[in-house]
Parts: sequence; C-alpha cells; structure tokens
Amino acid sequence: MTNSEKALQMHEEWNGKIETVAKSHVSSREDLAIAYTPGVAEPCKVIANDPEAAYKYTIKANTIAVVSDGSAVLGLGNIGAKAAMPVMEGKAVLFKEFGGVNAVPICLDTQDTEEIIRTVVNIAPAFGGINLEDISAPRCFEIEERLKQLLDIPVFHDDQHGTAIVVLAGIINALKVVGKQKENCRVVVNGAGSAGVAITKLLLTYGFPHITMCDINGIIGKSSPNLNWMQQKMTEVTNLENKTGTLADALKGADIFVGVSAPNIVTQEMVASMNTDSILFAMANPVPEIMPDLAKAAGARVVGTGRSDFPNQVNNVVAFPGIFKGALEGRATQITEEMKLATANAIASLVPDEELNENNILPEAFDPRVSDVVSRAVKALI
Amino acid sequence: MTNSEKALQMHEEWNGKIETVAKSHVSSREDLAIAYTPGVAEPCKVIANDPEAAYKYTIKANTIAVVSDGSAVLGLGNIGAKAAMPVMEGKAVLFKEFGGVNAVPICLDTQDTEEIIRTVVNIAPAFGGINLEDISAPRCFEIEERLKQLLDIPVFHDDQHGTAIVVLAGIINALKVVGKQKENCRVVVNGAGSAGVAITKLLLTYGFPHITMCDINGIIGKSSPNLNWMQQKMTEVTNLENKTGTLADALKGADIFVGVSAPNIVTQEMVASMNTDSILFAMANPVPEIMPDLAKAAGARVVGTGRSDFPNQVNNVVAFPGIFKGALEGRATQITEEMKLATANAIASLVPDEELNENNILPEAFDPRVSDVVSRAVKALI
Repeated sequence: MTNSEKALQMHEEWNGKIETVAKSHVSSREDLAIAYTPGVAEPCKVIANDPEAAYKYTIKANTIAVVSDGSAVLGLGNIGAKAAMPVMEGKAVLFKEFGGVNAVPICLDTQDTEEIIRTVVNIAPAFGGINLEDISAPRCFEIEERLKQLLDIPVFHDDQHGTAIVVLAGIINALKVVGKQKENCRVVVNGAGSAGVAITKLLLTYGFPHITMCDINGIIGKSSPNLNWMQQKMTEVTNLENKTGTLADALKGADIFVGVSAPNIVTQEMVASMNTDSILFAMANPVPEIMPDLAKAAGARVVGTGRSDFPNQVNNVVAFPGIFKGALEGRATQITEEMKLATANAIASLVPDEELNENNILPEAFDPRVSDVVSRAVKALI
Repeated sequence: MTNSEKALQMHEEWNGKIETVAKSHVSSREDLAIAYTPGVAEPCKVIANDPEAAYKYTIKANTIAVVSDGSAVLGLGNIGAKAAMPVMEGKAVLFKEFGGVNAVPICLDTQDTEEIIRTVVNIAPAFGGINLEDISAPRCFEIEERLKQLLDIPVFHDDQHGTAIVVLAGIINALKVVGKQKENCRVVVNGAGSAGVAITKLLLTYGFPHITMCDINGIIGKSSPNLNWMQQKMTEVTNLENKTGTLADALKGADIFVGVSAPNIVTQEMVASMNTDSILFAMANPVPEIMPDLAKAAGARVVGTGRSDFPNQVNNVVAFPGIFKGALEGRATQITEEMKLATANAIASLVPDEELNENNILPEAFDPRVSDVVSRAVKALI
C-alpha cells in the first residue's frame, strides 16, 4: 500500500481526526444540576457582570479556532472549504498533541474578505485565539491585519509567521555555523506570497539590511508591473539598490537564499554564483527549489528544506503549538513582533553550540522540549 | 456549600467543560506524514472532486455546532455571547454524553438576524448539523426558517422543538392515563415565545383541534394588540372561536394546560375550573406556574414540570441527542415534522402501558435506551 492509499484509508477509519470530549461527565441528576441547569446559571451570571471571567469558567481559556477559506491549501490551491477540512483537522490535532491547545477547525463557505472578517469576529467570543490557515495572498494580509485590530484575542496566520519564525531560527543557527554576521549578509527571498512576504518582514525586523525579493518574473522592485498592494509596500523596504533582472541575477554574490516557490528552479550554476559559505532554505514542497545534494555539490554550506527526509527540516510544528500555548496561558491579546523574534531565538537555542553543525541547525519536530521553551518565550513578553 | 457555590467551583476547575481530543495520535514522523502532510492531501483531493466525501473523511460526519447569540439564555435573558458559553458547553457535553454526537459551542458576537444567518451559513462546511439555542423570539423563527432553506444539513432550534417534542410525548401518555382522545381535548398554551409557539404548532400537527394560546395579556386572538408576526400567524390556526379574556377565562373547561411562562400564575381556582381529569405541564423554571401538590389538590390528574425533583419531568435531553444522532447517522438534510412526531411517539413508547400512571408518563433523562430509540425513529424516516 502506498503512503497515499494508507492516508486515505486511515482518514476513512478516523472519520474525523478530532472529537469533542466532556471534561464534566454527566452520569447522575446531581451531575446534570451542576454542569447544566440549574447550576450552570452561576458562571453565566458571573460572566455577564465581568466578561473577563469567561477565561475562568469556559473553553475560551484554552481553545482556538483554526480558520480557513480553502483558497490556498497546501500545494493544492483553491480547493474550497470542505476539501480543506482534513488539513484544518490535522492542524487541530497538532495544536493539541504538541501544545496541549484545544482547537476547532472552521472552514468558511465564503472567500470574500469582508465576509471572512465579519464571520471570524462573530464567532470570536467562544475562542481564546484565531489561527488563520491556507488563505491566499494578498487577502490573507488584510484579513489578519483587520482581525488584529477588531479582536482582543491573538490572531496569527501560520502560513506567514510560523514559516517566517522557523526560517529565522534556522538562519540564526546557520550564521553561527558559517561564521557570518547578519549585517553583512545579502538575502534573496524567492516567492512573494504569504510566506515570502512574512519571511522578508521578519528578517528585516531581525536586522538583515539587504533583502531582495523575487517572484516568477524575477527581481521585485519599484518598477515591477502587476504587484499587489503588499508587494508594492515591500518594495519600499527591500531591494534598496533597485536592481532588476532574474533570480539568477539576484543570487550573484548573495549569502542566503530562501525559497518558498517552485520545484527545481535554482540551478547549480546559480548556487555557484553565490558568496562563499552560502545558506539555502529550499522549501518548495515536496520537491525543493534545488535538491540538497546538488546545492552542496555546487558550494552551498548549509541547506534546509521542508522535508523530513533531509537534514534541517523547516517545520512550523516547532512554532505554532507553543506560541498559542504561551499566548493562552499568559492571556496575550496579540502575537507581537517581539514574540516572533523571541520564538525564533528560543527555537534556535534548542540546538546548543556544541551540537550545531551544517546538518543540525533546527530542533526536531518531535523534540519534547520545544513547545515548553517556545511558550515560555512568548509568555515572558506578555 | 450550596449547589450554586459548587457549580461555580466546578466550572472553575473544569475551565471549559469540553476539550478537543485527537483520534489520530501523532507520535512519529510516519504518523505525521499520514495525518498531516503529505498524506492529508489525499482526502483533500477526493473531497475537492466530490464534496459528499466530506462525510467519509472529516468531522462533518458526526459533529454539530451549538449556536447561540446569548439573547435568551435560560431564565437569565439577554446576557450576551460570552455569558452564554457555559450553557452552550453544557449542551455540547449532553450531546456527546447522551448521544455520542461531537458538538462545538459557538456563541455569536451579534444579535442581528441577517448577520447570524450569514455567519452560520459561512461556518457550515465543517459541521453535519446546527443546533440553535437560546435565541430570543421572534428572531429565532426567522433564523431557523431561513437557515433550513439555505443549508443542506439539519438545523434545529432546540428551545422550540426539543421542548415541543417532549411535551407531546408526555401528553400522548397522559391521555392514555386519563382515557381521553386528542380530538375531544381543549388545550391552553400559556407563553407565546419560542417554546409556546413550537408546542402549539406540534400539537396542531399531531391533531389537537382546539388550542388557545395566552400570553401576559391573556388570550391571544386576531384582535390582540402588539403581536409579533409569528404570533399573528398563530391566530390563524388557534383560538378558532375567537375568544377573548384572561388566562383564567381560557382555562375554564380546558383539558390540558401547557405553561412555558412564569412562576405561580396558575391558581387552584383556575385548575378547579378545568374539565375533569385535567393534565397540566407547568414548566416555568425553577418555580412552575403552579406547584404539583397544589394542582393535584385542586383536581388535576397528571402534572408535569421542568424539575427533576417532581414526577414527570419534561427534559429535552431525552430528545435532542438522539435526534441529531439519528439525523447524522442517516445523513438527513432536515429534521422534518414527521421526525418530530416520530420522536415524541418513540419517547412515549419507552413507558409501556403496564408501567404508565399519573406519576410516570415520561422516561428518565438517564434511561440508557432513550437515544437509541429516538435515533432509530428519526433514521427510519430518512
């Protein structure tokens, strides 16, 4: 049986990868009178007088919604709400299994920005946080930004920030391995969707001065045609030398390549044209922008991918469960830029200097320390 | 410690009465590759081609949303979304514990009819059914009606139909006890909100020809002022003799009283003015329209209340878990009038003739047979 056949069979067997389970079991009239009427009126009355008490008496304390409109699911594209459910359920499983966070998959029967915003605002009272997922760019930027303004609970688009945080963690450690300083590095980010934009923003915040974004048409600059509003905004803070040309042009002399784009679009010649001790994160999935062995043979020093069968896997699961665990425990109202940086540093710190090498820059997804270390880093900033 | 103190303490200890639990545990890279990427893409692709497959591979098969806007919660009134959460969580617990149905509490930060409808439509893809709860009349009628038209999954307002079904079940058995026929009975329903209207409708459907509704101003008829649109509609099918007057006037010569109104508003004199072998369902909570011992002393033969400390408790929990269990298992697209009647008959049938008496007309909430019997009755009509 292939992996695909196994996956289909198991999904049929599970028939839903999560279930709701009562913490308050009801097996007698007395139980019923406490967990339901008439006893339940007591916490209701307390919350009516003090809405903050919802965190004391309800699932809001430890439950988030995993919200998608099914418009950009995995590499499958715009497959719609129902077809996105297995991914959102999987995400809900990871939140619980890795972070102890209860998560409810909510797939929306609309792809209209205003409708999505209104719907999420309307369902927010039950939840302590909103994880946005697999919403296409550039709508995802506006939806997240507006929801952050409208809601008093953390809103986090994992495709953007989860990826950006783990890439930054990897780069922090990769720089130690190659002995370079961020101030002197030239970075090329290929792919200007949700992940590419978020990675670029976080690397800028971290202090990389020279970042060039590319997309399918090559280097993105002020004169590039057909940019969306977010890409246009990015031209104000990237490619400050106003270069034009192809990805190959961008890579000449670069120290770091971050790909969230398409399979096999980086050649060995391009890698060879980079600065010495180059670092590549080739995260197109399942086939990376360049295979690690080819990149290494062409002179790359550190190579990461999205795959678990190569060293240095960039896997969001080391970030999002711990981030929401910490945010809920500390009752954060936002996931701030400082928290993202702290999370990246915390993840990087899990590989101590003496264990650090070209093939070991990131902790494993199943490293049991990860979510506690990340949640503590987030909580320390609340 | 009082019951109220105990309830508050336990709600704090639970800190949310339900949790989400993974059915697909993830403890290795192999697990991750099946439950999440890349394996999860397989069910996604199947559902993208055939949306019905969502029932095969996702939680839609066995999960409902318990939706409220917090506008009419228990006897507490319009306490809002957050304060309604303990009730909706309690309901979710009962769905799982009594019917094996997974349920997610969704409390809405809006009380606008159109917003509620749109929000529920938008979140529907994840769910196999919608249980509406504690939404004030008359908005609840329009919201349910419109959602039934818009959605292809069952929508059920339990405050209306759950109550109506259990009252009908009780009346079916009470008529056997007193030896009367529905065709000859005069019924008075006091309270013209969601429950009163639904009870009246279901009793009409069942075949009671003479029903008079009352509200705080007395008998409702075509000339009553200040009726909402639903109450006006009810005047076309109730009070066919176009009586006017008070509740006391309505009760003279009546066979059955159904109260979903206010404490202590039925006097012994009113009961004494009813026909012989009268049946009273006095369901104001926690203090009924008349206490059972007073009603009995004044001549009532069968008395039911909403309370568990008196005989003949009308408790929705004998209906809603089994109804959704059956609807989900049989993949019903609606809960029909036939299903409601069948459910009432199924519940009534659980008290066999030889056990039937004035103090035993309804099965206990904890009768383990209930949800199976009800779900089979529903499934038989799909």
